[in-house]
Amino acid sequence: MSATSTQDTPEFIEDFHTMSSFGATSGGGIDRQAATDEDAAVRRWFHTWLESHDFRVEYDEIGNQYGLLSFIDGADFVLTGSHMDSQPLAGRFDGSYGVLASAHAALEVKRRVEAGELTPTHNLAVVNWFNEEGSRFTPSMMGSSVYTGKMDLTSAYESTALDGTTARSELKRHGFIGSFTPPKAASYAEIHVEQGRGMDNSGATIGLVAETWGAKKFQVTVRGEQGHTGSTLLADRQDALFGASIVISELRRYAEAREGHPLQASVSTMKVLPNSPVTIAREVQMNLDLRSPDWETLNEGYAAVRDIVSKAELEAKVKIELTPTHEWKLSPYQPEGVHLADAVATELGLKHEQVQTVAGHDSTNMKDTCPTVMLFIPSVDGISHNEAEFTKDEDMEDGVRMMTATLTELCQGALNA
Amino acid sequence: MSATSTQDTPEFIEDFHTMSSFGATSGGGIDRQAATDEDAAVRRWFHTWLESHDFRVEYDEIGNQYGLLSFIDGADFVLTGSHMDSQPLAGRFDGSYGVLASAHAALEVKRRVEAGELTPTHNLAVVNWFNEEGSRFTPSMMGSSVYTGKMDLTSAYESTALDGTTARSELKRHGFIGSFTPPKAASYAEIHVEQGRGMDNSGATIGLVAETWGAKKFQVTVRGEQGHTGSTLLADRQDALFGASIVISELRRYAEAREGHPLQASVSTMKVLPNSPVTIAREVQMNLDLRSPDWETLNEGYAAVRDIVSKAELEAKVKIELTPTHEWKLSPYQPEGVHLADAVATELGLKHEQVQTVAGHDSTNMKDTCPTVMLFIPSVDGISHNEAEFTKDEDMEDGVRMMTATLTELCQGALNA
Repeated sequence: MSATSTQDTPEFIEDFHTMSSFGATSGGGIDRQAATDEDAAVRRWFHTWLESHDFRVEYDEIGNQYGLLSFIDGADFVLTGSHMDSQPLAGRFDGSYGVLASAHAALEVKRRVEAGELTPTHNLAVVNWFNEEGSRFTPSMMGSSVYTGKMDLTSAYESTALDGTTARSELKRHGFIGSFTPPKAASYAEIHVEQGRGMDNSGATIGLVAETWGAKKFQVTVRGEQGHTGSTLLADRQDALFGASIVISELRRYAEAREGHPLQASVSTMKVLPNSPVTIAREVQMNLDLRSPDWETLNEGYAAVRDIVSKAELEAKVKIELTPTHEWKLSPYQPEGVHLADAVATELGLKHEQVQTVAGHDSTNMKDTCPTVMLFIPSVDGISHNEAEFTKDEDMEDGVRMMTATLTELCQGALNA
Repeated sequence: MSATSTQDTPEFIEDFHTMSSFGATSGGGIDRQAATDEDAAVRRWFHTWLESHDFRVEYDEIGNQYGLLSFIDGADFVLTGSHMDSQPLAGRFDGSYGVLASAHAALEVKRRVEAGELTPTHNLAVVNWFNEEGSRFTPSMMGSSVYTGKMDLTSAYESTALDGTTARSELKRHGFIGSFTPPKAASYAEIHVEQGRGMDNSGATIGLVAETWGAKKFQVTVRGEQGHTGSTLLADRQDALFGASIVISELRRYAEAREGHPLQASVSTMKVLPNSPVTIAREVQMNLDLRSPDWETLNEGYAAVRDIVSKAELEAKVKIELTPTHEWKLSPYQPEGVHLADAVATELGLKHEQVQTVAGHDSTNMKDTCPTVMLFIPSVDGISHNEAEFTKDEDMEDGVRMMTATLTELCQGALNA
């Protein structure tokens, strides 16, 4: 177990503020959707940061950005990182904090190796995964999905934004398509803000993520008939927007009225056709997202959605197509990773607790490939995907210390016994 | 009173099919939103048609297209027309039928004048009003609103489409901004398809529009807070799309449950911000449209909307702004115009009845300026703003005959006693 850190945390905070200036919004947040000019700018800044600290910078075919530290020729790599892209009008912490924390932690590990304080068995690489958010190019977690083989490169390249550009053309425009074959990870560590109130309420500094909630995601298409908003009798209407509204409002009411395990139900995107002030909508396209820490609850939620959809079809005289697009089961992180993180936090004297993650992370992909440690730091009031997201400096600094100690263990093969 | 028409109706049907080929859709309709390439194409075709039939073609500053027939130097003009622009994926009848029917009717009046069968006291002009539909550039009835002084030219020019172009720049691009000062109308006549089931049910061929329904239109802005769709607890959400859905579904249910006079309540446009699959909507903008043949019902409807909005604010924890944008009271067409049309239809032996119009028309503006005759022909199943809109050839032909006889009367000063 490593001793207390000697790293220069003020430098971390300074770098964090610099990083937050790329795509900064007037509301104190950032807007850095994947492969936009703002995302490209922060990546170029990080590229320079890595090189100036003697990391070797590489890009793979899907634009994941790697900063490599080779301690031992031919040894396996420990990977650590998160993502610097954001939602529109988002907070500046989210994944960006995680990438920078990993980078600073890796830098301290390098110092320890060079100072002879640490004898590694593994090399170390920091990664800034491409397009974790999926707001501009669906799906989310694209970079780590391609890295882990869960998504093929061609499908990822073809993902198309609302403005018609593809992920490939935007990556190409910024020069982020590389030919680097990334190393297979021996282990992976990620740190992220919690995106919930749990740790802010309990006062814990470090969350040891033990499990991810299950999720079921759908594309919903409501088909009605165009008509004149003035002259078409209510009884004659087949109003797709009315049908969609029934689904949204009834689903939310159902989820709130449930007892037992929580069910998070959301609709957050909508396209209305033809979207004219005097023409009844012929079609509405929307997403539908169910999450729960209990698989049975998710199945009940899905049954309820089908029920609500049938009732909406009758009431609004529309047809509704419900297409499953993505699902993941409740899934534990490896207990060994949780135990390791527990021991490290105890050693550092950081208040910690086991937590679940509702949101998916790049580590959700990585844990299926290699031993993984997933860490949280608290977020005030749990505000996420919002410019008002906030985490205190001391929590960010404790997170860097925690990551440094974790990487120190991983680089000595802690999870590769 | 004129005798039966001698005009060449097969030529009308042929011209109607040619006109319907501009912006034709695969579903049998048209898509000719104001000042698009498709709208410009049909206007250029109509320009040529008018010139080849010896009309003088002029454009005023808002792009209204006039075909002028001068019988008597310095005499006042009777105006007749409608609009050739359409909703997206709309039917080919709507206002386009009306412009062409007016043009053919005017042509027959000209023949009668030239043949010495008719001694006019007025000149005659056909008009294709700019942007009646208002789907691309709000508000609707723009050309006739500027003509009648109800809207100023600058506001109309500045109306901006979703793609950022303005009405002015699009009119200019197509060369439709003219310097013609249009004549003040001595009287006005318009014919349009009914956009409702009334005459299709009753079997009437000609509707004599006696009154327009009242309308109240609003812009609704629902303000919530962005948050992560996965991790934000339901109890913490301020979901603008949930708030909007409550308003849409409850308003429709309220309108359907009402007894007494009908209330048509519609929401048909929606903009969701940020419209991301993993971020709760911070804002929804939508329209809201109430129509009724009874003013008290409209006032009750408005009170109900405010009530529904308050409840939605509480349930969804959002703020909702309801901004009135446009309203018109129930408003009769001049009884003299209705009587004239009644006499003409009786003379021609066309089955007719008095009707109301739910939709606004350019005549809704014109009737406040000059004596106006507003006529309907039936529409099968009342389908409107839909590619499946349909009116039978014989009904269209009867409408042309009806308009010819009406213009014959108006050009002899029938409503200018």
